Amino acid sequence: MGSLPLDASSVRPLNPEAFSGDSGAVLDFLAKYYRDVDKYPVRAADLEPEHGEPMEDVLEDVRRDILPGLTHWQSPSFFAFFPMNASAARFAGEMLSAGLNVVPFVWAASPATAELETVVVDWMGWLLGLPQRLLFSGGGGGVLQGSTCEAVVCTLLVVYASDQTHATFHKGARLFKTLLVGIPPSNFRVIQTSSASGYGLTADAVRAVVDRDVARGLVPLYLCATVGTTGLGAVDPVRKLGEVARRHGMWLHVDAAMNPHKWFLTNADCCCLWVANPRELTSALSTDPDQSRRFRAIKLWVVLRRYGAGGLREHIRRHVTAAKWFERAVAADERFEVVVPRKFSLVCFRLRPRFAGEDDETTLDGMNRELLAAVNASGQAFMTHFVVDGKFVIRLAVGGAMTEMRHAMDVWELLQGKADDLIHRYHLEG
Amino acid sequence: MGSLPLDASSVRPLNPEAFSGDSGAVLDFLAKYYRDVDKYPVRAADLEPEHGEPMEDVLEDVRRDILPGLTHWQSPSFFAFFPMNASAARFAGEMLSAGLNVVPFVWAASPATAELETVVVDWMGWLLGLPQRLLFSGGGGGVLQGSTCEAVVCTLLVVYASDQTHATFHKGARLFKTLLVGIPPSNFRVIQTSSASGYGLTADAVRAVVDRDVARGLVPLYLCATVGTTGLGAVDPVRKLGEVARRHGMWLHVDAAMNPHKWFLTNADCCCLWVANPRELTSALSTDPDQSRRFRAIKLWVVLRRYGAGGLREHIRRHVTAAKWFERAVAADERFEVVVPRKFSLVCFRLRPRFAGEDDETTLDGMNRELLAAVNASGQAFMTHFVVDGKFVIRLAVGGAMTEMRHAMDVWELLQGKADDLIHRYHLEG
Repeated sequence: MGSLPLDASSVRPLNPEAFSGDSGAVLDFLAKYYRDVDKYPVRAADLEPEHGEPMEDVLEDVRRDILPGLTHWQSPSFFAFFPMNASAARFAGEMLSAGLNVVPFVWAASPATAELETVVVDWMGWLLGLPQRLLFSGGGGGVLQGSTCEAVVCTLLVVYASDQTHATFHKGARLFKTLLVGIPPSNFRVIQTSSASGYGLTADAVRAVVDRDVARGLVPLYLCATVGTTGLGAVDPVRKLGEVARRHGMWLHVDAAMNPHKWFLTNADCCCLWVANPRELTSALSTDPDQSRRFRAIKLWVVLRRYGAGGLREHIRRHVTAAKWFERAVAADERFEVVVPRKFSLVCFRLRPRFAGEDDETTLDGMNRELLAAVNASGQAFMTHFVVDGKFVIRLAVGGAMTEMRHAMDVWELLQGKADDLIHRYHLEG
Repeated sequence: MGSLPLDASSVRPLNPEAFSGDSGAVLDFLAKYYRDVDKYPVRAADLEPEHGEPMEDVLEDVRRDILPGLTHWQSPSFFAFFPMNASAARFAGEMLSAGLNVVPFVWAASPATAELETVVVDWMGWLLGLPQRLLFSGGGGGVLQGSTCEAVVCTLLVVYASDQTHATFHKGARLFKTLLVGIPPSNFRVIQTSSASGYGLTADAVRAVVDRDVARGLVPLYLCATVGTTGLGAVDPVRKLGEVARRHGMWLHVDAAMNPHKWFLTNADCCCLWVANPRELTSALSTDPDQSRRFRAIKLWVVLRRYGAGGLREHIRRHVTAAKWFERAVAADERFEVVVPRKFSLVCFRLRPRFAGEDDETTLDGMNRELLAAVNASGQAFMTHFVVDGKFVIRLAVGGAMTEMRHAMDVWELLQGKADDLIHRYHLEG
């Protein structure tokens, strides 16, 4: 394994033998972890290190002290939040990114990294069926970000940067640009949604708010439409909202909640951002050494090459099929209700036994909290919840790389069992 | 290798055999890359992929199309910008981070990740000899960020967040907080430095600006001191600046330019941020799913465990020793001058032959630009430059994981040869 203890004088950080030894040990460790991950419960000593230690000791501590304290996001029974995909290919890509460890913050710092990013960003746009004008090949373009927050802030920076004098524009640091983005909270409009629109924005609601602001002499700046909200997977009517935005010259940002690190088998962090005119974006993001961008493109590139569009479609369809099956099972059980129609692979439901009437929200709230707690405490599955219109809703988000139909069936069986116990107890108590 | 072409139906993203096959292929690829990296010049087809491909084909394309277009940051002769360290241990750590792929954005999402982060952040603080009160063990604490920009923005968010009404304070999304940070450019003070103070800030200069602002009724908010500036490695007098900041109740941020991803054998991205009172920081950074934090702590933890403090000290001293040797060599050659005294492992120098007088800055500028271009064009080494007081300064930043004394000697020999040619030519022309 080439993994001996290290004394100070023997540190040769990239010695190829030590590299292969340490890395091989981790590979074996991870292969075994994936083989056994469904056996772990899904949810889950500090002396300063003066002297180097063997890799085996470090991995033994990971096994003994860290794994037990982890929530196992790669478990096939992880249905919480939104699962973060992993795959052998993204791992290979991440290894290439980490191994080459180039820092493409300026073109000269690694030309191929910038070029590869344009390739994969176009591939993703093609895969998602984006309008041609958003692709580099169509005059648009995009970048890979670490997270949706970064992506949204960047588009705001663009809007603002283009409003700034060149003096501030030339300050390279993203920090300075960020500081220029100062929208007072009083100018934020959080527009109410309702079950009538499946909790999506309606163009009428947006138009009403915008018109009122315009009448007050305000200038509408930025509209964010969402395709797949975090809580319920709600989808806003992008085209209609786009028409409102265009009429008022607002920047329209579509949060498609489809980061490669969510559903495209690419591990965190990797988020795609497209803009129709990438020039402002590049001028807002380039030339900042301190942002030390990682070579994210190569891991997404390896994933797309290794599995292909066909493989990714099949992977996503497998999840949607399982979610459809689960939704039908919930709908067919009179003790449960589907709270909002399934979108993508997210099922939002709750326990609602006959004896608890419309007006009995307090009881239902308590029962569903107990039900979710019981399921998660079992360690056999992990789900999270969302509260909408005062209703406590349980979310089943299907998206694990190893999640198959049988895991959806298992969690449904588990839910039914826990529901029986609960209802029985409430009957006795009531 | 278990690396067959994939058709849609065969996508099993974490199948342990496929995982070991693909990952093993990348390991071999990278071990060979490190073995040969000093042979590469240091500076350096897109049909949509409908069908999956074998790993070998993907790696062959990396070899043929990507490596030639990379700037090889891991080359021992990379002396540009600031080198980004890599090591077998950080790679092992990065593999663990990518392999476990947990997303510790809230405690429940993975308790051990948060706990491990407090451990390694304290270790780093201990290693840097930070005051006890900045460590978790002393009531302070910190986090791992992706970059210095993130770190600085976070501290500003803290300042602002604490000034906000609870209504805005409770908006979880970092996006919203970022939007609240709106400092008009007119309120930025960029304070001049000079060679007299080695291009560090002086407390007097800061005091003068602050007093003037206070007299005008402004409230000084934030002072950033730097230990090791990007261009010249200048060091600001932290204690004296701290006294100015304390007198006016300003937030003092020290940018120590010592990110683990720079000099501590940990690959990008990994940047430490400490604060005396971490509560504001955690409330400013927690509960944002979209920031999808990576499990950075484990890679820094593996580096510290594997090499130990002693190993890291020895690693850094090796770089400083090489930089000292280079500085002495430059000083001893009457054709060159050291422009500012060496700090850490950064040597800032320029060619200045006798025949070019004080008043001949134009000639010197041209000669040094040509000299740097000639060295970089050779592909045998890569350096960058900085302009200070109108002088074009060449920077030798020693910090590569594989960089040893002989590489500093080689680049000096290379510089002398190119300088001979240049001076000879200028003599003929002049």
